[in-house]
Formats: sequence, structure tokens, C-alpha cells
Amino acid sequence: MRSTIAAVLQCEVLNGPMDPHIQENRIGIICGGGSLPSELAHAAIASGCGIHLIGITGEADKRIENYPHSWIKWGEFGRMFHVLEQENCKDIVIIGTVTRPDLSQVRLDLGAVKMLPFMVSLLSGGDNSVLSNIVKFFESKGFKVRGAHEIAPSLLSPSGVVSRQSPEAADHDDIEIGLNVIQAMAPFDVGQAVVVARGHVLGVEAAEGTDDLLRRCRDLRQWGAKARTQRSGVLIKCPKPGQDLRIDLPTIGPRTLELAAEAGLKGIAVRAGHVLLADRADLLITADRHKLFVIGVDHDS
Amino acid sequence: MRSTIAAVLQCEVLNGPMDPHIQENRIGIICGGGSLPSELAHAAIASGCGIHLIGITGEADKRIENYPHSWIKWGEFGRMFHVLEQENCKDIVIIGTVTRPDLSQVRLDLGAVKMLPFMVSLLSGGDNSVLSNIVKFFESKGFKVRGAHEIAPSLLSPSGVVSRQSPEAADHDDIEIGLNVIQAMAPFDVGQAVVVARGHVLGVEAAEGTDDLLRRCRDLRQWGAKARTQRSGVLIKCPKPGQDLRIDLPTIGPRTLELAAEAGLKGIAVRAGHVLLADRADLLITADRHKLFVIGVDHDS
Repeated sequence: MRSTIAAVLQCEVLNGPMDPHIQENRIGIICGGGSLPSELAHAAIASGCGIHLIGITGEADKRIENYPHSWIKWGEFGRMFHVLEQENCKDIVIIGTVTRPDLSQVRLDLGAVKMLPFMVSLLSGGDNSVLSNIVKFFESKGFKVRGAHEIAPSLLSPSGVVSRQSPEAADHDDIEIGLNVIQAMAPFDVGQAVVVARGHVLGVEAAEGTDDLLRRCRDLRQWGAKARTQRSGVLIKCPKPGQDLRIDLPTIGPRTLELAAEAGLKGIAVRAGHVLLADRADLLITADRHKLFVIGVDHDS
Repeated sequence: MRSTIAAVLQCEVLNGPMDPHIQENRIGIICGGGSLPSELAHAAIASGCGIHLIGITGEADKRIENYPHSWIKWGEFGRMFHVLEQENCKDIVIIGTVTRPDLSQVRLDLGAVKMLPFMVSLLSGGDNSVLSNIVKFFESKGFKVRGAHEIAPSLLSPSGVVSRQSPEAADHDDIEIGLNVIQAMAPFDVGQAVVVARGHVLGVEAAEGTDDLLRRCRDLRQWGAKARTQRSGVLIKCPKPGQDLRIDLPTIGPRTLELAAEAGLKGIAVRAGHVLLADRADLLITADRHKLFVIGVDHDS
């Protein structure tokens, strides 16, 4: 399995686009919403992988239909495994956003019903272990769960300034504080994102998500007359220590940039090589429009 | 000055209610909203202090009229200092909630206009120094700013369980984690409050206030079916290290308990001796009604 991925990574460097219908070492991509599933499919093909996309109905974008694909409904686990086997996908990637399904509306197929006792035992392990249990679940069925960053490292934040705008000295100070806060929170499995402005920590993300963090920083800023005219502050975003990057890779996209602009920030700093930049072209256009910087920083944690 | 306060503290232990109109060593209480100004006035009288309350119109509760008092409008700083001098108040306490005044509606009196250049220089020192500048402002006028906890330590959280409900073993574990998070955040001037449930840090307060923290924990909980039926988690609240307790003493009240109940928590832990319990009778009734515990914990930080 490892050699497959090594070959894939090598392919990405050496080769241009290839036939997505290639039979060997195909990668099954289980697709939630947003642009990332299509971007990953594109990058995987460009690197010479065969792929098959499985879109979750109501979640995945129509754009996945540009690639070899199937659709499944929530609960059709039996069908999902059947498709993966049929399409010769031993390695899989789970990517894209998902809303929580309304469990009363989910109809389990026969394959899912057979797996039910097993699924219940996996899902009952407490909130934060659900994601790692999903990995175990797939692995128990003989699949290997890969991270998008393994298949397409080009989607990750590089090191250095990505945007046209660059951070200034005060912004670098804010970034440093943010990285230190994240470091300090490391033992507690929190602090994936922090907003720091003029040396003050405005917000710390725990379980609520980066969008909520940015929204409350926007609301806080509305009080200060100075803040309305003069932008300051940085969103600093990193994976939590020990975070399983295979299924929970931190991501920023154009929407993150829009919210950062609304919050009156000057830019976003992400840990280089550890955060996905979704929809990069649009992300950079959005950064330009709002004169925000985006920088990948190297940090040991 | 120090001896005045020492005498006051001694009085509180030794004596019952005395004449609030006593002339010497009167304490000026500048009153924002909520029950705390009246509670402080009551406790100060009980300990033998003379007091004079200055209610900010539109902020302070009518209950302050049960005590010797004057009303001032936002911007009437000249009048405020005049009243304080007239009433022989050298020590002052600033207490109660304030909304941010609509600056376009504030009319400055002559005393305020004279002080204007000085006030501007004090207020322009950056967001977080505003409170400490207010202290400097009063002290530059010859007043001594006291904390409510100095005048009426009986309003502070005692050590141990205050409520009928007590924390269980799992709650103590959550409290321990919360205290450690606050400790870890100490160098960054954040983390006055944390919510921990079943060992997971659900939320960390930075600049947004405890009510907002509890509201987002409530919203997070609505996702989990288990959380809807089974309560878990604790709000842990402490002063920030280096926080000036004279003007920014952390406070919980009945509303905090209501929000904790809505967030599905089991209780609140505060640092013993360092958090005000506002409206304690109502607070305990609210705790009982929702079967929440309230505990004062000892912690070095």
C-alpha cells in the first residue's frame, strides 16, 4: 500500500494528466460538499492515479460528475462498499464538508443493516473519537484511508506569502503570539485557530469552528470606533497536535477570507504544509480584493 | 487610606448595620446596572461604612435610591467629582454593568470639558488598558479606587460547594482540566472562562464574554442526541492572571446559571475568593431549580 502512494507522489511530479479510468491502484474518493473533492480528483488524475468518486447525495457538488463517479445516499453503506470493490479501489480518501444527516430520514440498506452492531460500537466512543472510528471502520473492511495531502500535496499551504499582500512587522508579532497560544493549548486538544490583534488575543477556537470564531471577532470589532476604520489582526490556523490529517485536515477557502475581511483582520497565517487551501484561485482573488495576506508559516509543535 | 479599609474589614466582622449617613471615611459607589451596587451598599453599611451612591442614569437600578445617592448622566464627570468631594468620599468603588454609551448623545459638562485632553490621552491607550486607565484617572484626581471585594468580601465566592447539588467525580475531572487550560493561557491574557465536558474543551473565552461562551456551547450541544438528554460539563471561571480586581472582578449571577442550564452543563466552578456571586439568593434558587452545582475551588495561578 505504501508503495502505491509513493508511486502516486512520484507520478505527480513526473507526469501530466493521464487516463482517469486506469484500472490499477485506483483511489476511491468519498465526496462531501465544496470544491475540494473535484480539486482532489483533478490533482489525482494529473499525477497519474485512477480514481472513482462516490458523491453523497445532498452533500457533494455536481462538479464531481466531470469524473468517473457514483452517487450514494446517506445510509447506503452496503452500496458504497460494493462500488468501491467493483471499481477496484483499495485506497480511499474522505473529503469535503458534510452536514449532519437527519437520522430519522436516513434509510439503511442491507449492507448497512448487516454492519449495524459494529457501527453502533464505533460511533458510541464519544464525540471526538468519531472521526478516528470512521478510519477504523474502513480499515476493518480492508480499505486503507489516505489523506488528501498524501494524494495531492499541491493542495496544501506552501511556506511563505501566497497572496499579493504581505504581513508587516506588527502582523508577524500577532502571528507569533497566535502560534504560542496554539502551542500552549496543545495538551488540551484545542486551539486549532486563534485571532490575535495588536498583541491581544481576541478569540480562541475550541469546538465551535473557525467561521464562528471569525463571526464573533467581527461582532466584537463593531464596538471599537478605531477598529471600524483601521484593520488589524490575524487569524492563525494550525492542526491540533495529534489531529488525524487523513480525515480532518484543517482547511481555509474563499469564505474564510471573506469572514476575515468582515472581522477587520489584515490576514491569515496557516501552518505550512498542514492546512488545505480550498479553491485556491478564488481564494487568492478574494485575498486581493480585500487586501488580505495569506502566509504559510513554519512552526514546530 | 489602607487603615480605612482595614478598619472597614474589621467592622464587617464585628458590627451590625450602622448609620449610612456617617460622615467619616465614606465610600463613593459609582453604580452601573444590576443588583451588585445595592448589594455592595448593603454590605458596606452592615460593616459600618458611610456610603454615597452615584447612579449612572440609564444604567443603575432604581434600588440604589434606598441608600444615600445622586444621579449623574454619562458625560457629567465634573458633577460626579463635585458630588464625591461634597459627600466626603475619598475612596470609591466602581461596580455594576455598563452599556457603551452612544457617544453622539453624550453631553459633556464643564468639568468633563476641562478634563478632555487628559481623558483622551487615557482612553487612547489601546483596548485592554482602558480599565486600568480609568483607575489612573480617578487616582490622578486624588481618589483611591477600591475593589468591591475589599469593601464586602462576603460577596465573593467562598471555598467549597455553595449549592444544594454537588459535583461528581467526572465533574471534578472537568474542573481540573478547565483550571489547567486557564493556567496554560495565563501568559496570553486570555482564558477567564472555559467550558469542559467529559474531558473535552468545548469553549474558551477570550474577548467575547462568558455569556457568549455559554450561548455557543448551547448551540454546539444541539447537534448531539446524547447531549440533549444527558447533561455534562462545567463552566470554570477565574480572574485572568494580573487582572485588576478593583474594576474588573469576574462575576456570576442568576443569568449565568440560566445560560449554563441552557448549555446542558452540570454546574459552575469559580476560583474561591476571586469571583463575585451577584444576587446570591436568586443565584442559589436558580441553581436548585436547574439542579446545577456551584463550587468555589482553590487553585494557584
